Amino acid sequence: MQFSAHQIATLVNGSVEGDPDVMVDQLAKIEEASSGSLSFLSNPKYEQYLYTTKASIVIVNEDLKIDRPVQATIIRAKNAYTAFSTLLELYNQMRLQRVGIEEPVFIHPSAKIGKNAYIGAFAYIDKDVVIGDNCKIYPHVYIGENAQIGDDTTLFSGVTVYFDCVIGQRAVIHSGTVIGSDGFGFAPQEDGTYTKISQIGNVLIEDDVEIGANTVIDRATMGSTIIRKGVKLDNLIQVAHNVEIGKNTVIAAQSGISGSTKIGEHAVIGGQVGIVGHISIANGSQIQAQSGVNRTIAETGKKWSGTPAAPYSAQMRSQVVYSRLPELERRLEELEQLLLTKELLK
Amino acid sequence: MQFSAHQIATLVNGSVEGDPDVMVDQLAKIEEASSGSLSFLSNPKYEQYLYTTKASIVIVNEDLKIDRPVQATIIRAKNAYTAFSTLLELYNQMRLQRVGIEEPVFIHPSAKIGKNAYIGAFAYIDKDVVIGDNCKIYPHVYIGENAQIGDDTTLFSGVTVYFDCVIGQRAVIHSGTVIGSDGFGFAPQEDGTYTKISQIGNVLIEDDVEIGANTVIDRATMGSTIIRKGVKLDNLIQVAHNVEIGKNTVIAAQSGISGSTKIGEHAVIGGQVGIVGHISIANGSQIQAQSGVNRTIAETGKKWSGTPAAPYSAQMRSQVVYSRLPELERRLEELEQLLLTKELLK
Amino acid sequence: MQFSAHQIATLVNGSVEGDPDVMVDQLAKIEEASSGSLSFLSNPKYEQYLYTTKASIVIVNEDLKIDRPVQATIIRAKNAYTAFSTLLELYNQMRLQRVGIEEPVFIHPSAKIGKNAYIGAFAYIDKDVVIGDNCKIYPHVYIGENAQIGDDTTLFSGVTVYFDCVIGQRAVIHSGTVIGSDGFGFAPQEDGTYTKISQIGNVLIEDDVEIGANTVIDRATMGSTIIRKGVKLDNLIQVAHNVEIGKNTVIAAQSGISGSTKIGEHAVIGGQVGIVGHISIANGSQIQAQSGVNRTIAETGKKWSGTPAAPYSAQMRSQVVYSRLPELERRLEELEQLLLTKELLK
Repeated sequence: MQFSAHQIATLVNGSVEGDPDVMVDQLAKIEEASSGSLSFLSNPKYEQYLYTTKASIVIVNEDLKIDRPVQATIIRAKNAYTAFSTLLELYNQMRLQRVGIEEPVFIHPSAKIGKNAYIGAFAYIDKDVVIGDNCKIYPHVYIGENAQIGDDTTLFSGVTVYFDCVIGQRAVIHSGTVIGSDGFGFAPQEDGTYTKISQIGNVLIEDDVEIGANTVIDRATMGSTIIRKGVKLDNLIQVAHNVEIGKNTVIAAQSGISGSTKIGEHAVIGGQVGIVGHISIANGSQIQAQSGVNRTIAETGKKWSGTPAAPYSAQMRSQVVYSRLPELERRLEELEQLLLTKELLK
Repeated sequence: MQFSAHQIATLVNGSVEGDPDVMVDQLAKIEEASSGSLSFLSNPKYEQYLYTTKASIVIVNEDLKIDRPVQATIIRAKNAYTAFSTLLELYNQMRLQRVGIEEPVFIHPSAKIGKNAYIGAFAYIDKDVVIGDNCKIYPHVYIGENAQIGDDTTLFSGVTVYFDCVIGQRAVIHSGTVIGSDGFGFAPQEDGTYTKISQIGNVLIEDDVEIGANTVIDRATMGSTIIRKGVKLDNLIQVAHNVEIGKNTVIAAQSGISGSTKIGEHAVIGGQVGIVGHISIANGSQIQAQSGVNRTIAETGKKWSGTPAAPYSAQMRSQVVYSRLPELERRLEELEQLLLTKELLK
Repeated sequence: MQFSAHQIATLVNGSVEGDPDVMVDQLAKIEEASSGSLSFLSNPKYEQYLYTTKASIVIVNEDLKIDRPVQATIIRAKNAYTAFSTLLELYNQMRLQRVGIEEPVFIHPSAKIGKNAYIGAFAYIDKDVVIGDNCKIYPHVYIGENAQIGDDTTLFSGVTVYFDCVIGQRAVIHSGTVIGSDGFGFAPQEDGTYTKISQIGNVLIEDDVEIGANTVIDRATMGSTIIRKGVKLDNLIQVAHNVEIGKNTVIAAQSGISGSTKIGEHAVIGGQVGIVGHISIANGSQIQAQSGVNRTIAETGKKWSGTPAAPYSAQMRSQVVYSRLPELERRLEELEQLLLTKELLK
């Protein structure tokens, strides 16, 4: 795929300075670009690279002053970063555009598949599944009985969706992620063994959710494990049965949320965080990476850190003293020695 | 699937009060149920919902006193919770019942498959594999050369079982779990590179084991990585080479057990726990979430917490003081100041 | 596969004492071996087992003194451990040797596949993919458009390689691992939602890299996420977008490295470690399991521990005092009481 400076300027509503016919076929950072690349300059810190870059085209802000000769063709746009992001997105959509049903696939005769679908080879679509319009179901995806997938959703290679689960519109789910495996529920028996508690609920994922690779969301014991509209989950995350994650909450990789916990809206949760079961986390909470949250957070919009999680600033103060603990102990010993010497302590 | 109150009462050995012909086609919690649902009341805390629920049928304890009019048909059973659990399990078995071999599959001519098997499309069953009776092998499962799967075992979509591994009877393994990948063994060389140590052992999983999704159990260097009878493992767990996990031990999500460590029987290990290699953990140990265990636990039945893991109550005491560390330091400084002022310290 | 003592001695350049025609068909530890097994004795600690083992053949060091009768046939080799490792490796290569393309597979007509390839059933190889010589692509592997796989590389069942990613020679990647899923990049919007930042870079894996099962390496936003030559990654690891991991670095299971962080060469990182984004870790750093690294490590070859990670010996000293915190507080209270009593403090 090749584009001329003229074509790109048209796409981003910009103006060309230099050769309008120069062609590019890749995107690159301004400091790393080679000939044939399109790049952009937004951060003034990188301005020096404008004069040395090997990029063939550079998009810059409308009002940028250029005071020395530049090799590249320049495209001036209102906001260079936004213009470049738009191009990235267009490029990506073109790259990932595919339609049609490859062979072999397994599609149960009762399954309904919307318009313009891509179904990759070796995908498995079971009985009574409903898939919306413009979906991309990559190879090796498994969609169990009676599951529903909304319009414009992409499931990358190897995603598993168990029976009865529901995924909204415009979702993107990356490879190896499992939606709807059994919740971890076992009743201890008198002989020391455990009896499984059947998990007959489902997972309900609302619109505009993105989920990374190899994440697991367990189905509810009864009812639904719920991922609300606009949630973004990273890779290798554990979401246990009957959890609910509120709108537009973002969770980084390798965090785990135990059963029946309810996370509020607009929360930001770092990587490797653990949250115990049966609590709730207020809207707008910010939880630092590796924290362990063991009780309900009721106040909205606060920052938390550590195990057990405490308010961020208190945690930072304790952390600083922790690093001085050996010195603290020595000072205490000195006082004890002194008071012993003075015969005040014995 | 629809059932009448009469049919359900027969299944759970109960008696009907109200319309025996009312039909239900789903299960729900009493506080969330809609018309057409079957629910139950066991915990007295929820008794109020009996009078407001929209459930069509509610199973209650034999001896429950009902003093106001109730909309739903009532089924009295010896133990409402047990009766409901039995129904859940029956329902689930019906939902997941499937038999037969779909197309296309890859089954090596030398593989032996027992009676009443379900083999989903795109399953791969290699040379000399032996699969017992009544197994369910879902789509995209891979079973390597010479592996053995016991009777009544279910491998959900996308499970991988490497060559030579052995899985017992009545196992349930969820999607994306990998059994028998190479242990992480490399010998450092003088030039700074690493040489792989071949991992020629296997994984041995005994009867009645359940394993969640995207968990990994590595094969032994030599001999076997062993998961004993009745063990329950959650999602995203790491079990390294030559580990042994004792009977009826339960491990929550995202925990990791390093090489050659031996976990006792009836242990309960929380989520995100790390256990170093080459140690042993006594029977009945309870290890709190996010703990880091760095030495052998020899005493049975104790509770542990923290990194490095310490007895639970000691850890709780240290934790409390930790949150007061800045105050502690201030008090120490005051004493120092005082003694300086009094010219006792200089 | 059966081998005689004579054949084995020839392979390892050793000499036979006892029956040169005795046959073995398995490998086992000396203390666990049964008849028909080949074992070895290297560590003097295990010497006692030489006289009780049921192994049919034992490889020992050339100069070992044997002063009592031994049942097994003995093979003397220069270094018993090295000799045994060589045999392990040969055995493993024979076990895993396979060539040919099974059916059904999906191979795009434009894909190029080298000599002596094994392509398992249900593998998916997309447009313009290039696969080197002697590669083993197991069943259910997905290789996206334009990806490249070097000579002698093995991708076990269920590995996913997204479009444009590049994997070097002699790589081994275990089941369920995902290479090239989107980096976790979203721009917060004024209405509280997030807009995806397209991730158009790739993952570049150099030669001689081994990666465990269910690990995830995200593609770069632009440019490449880079895994340098000789790196060894364990299971369930998270490598975020634009990370670079230096030559011969080893990372244990369940660790996570956030975006744009650069890990040096010859580092050793324990399990469940978390490393924040946009920092660098010096060559030869050793990071203890469960550590949380939140700033750049500039000094080479040091040992780190804890959250936030501190120099190992300082961390150990703080840890020891931490376990005595309740006692420390009590001692401080005693001093305060004393000074109160003496009317020095009020």
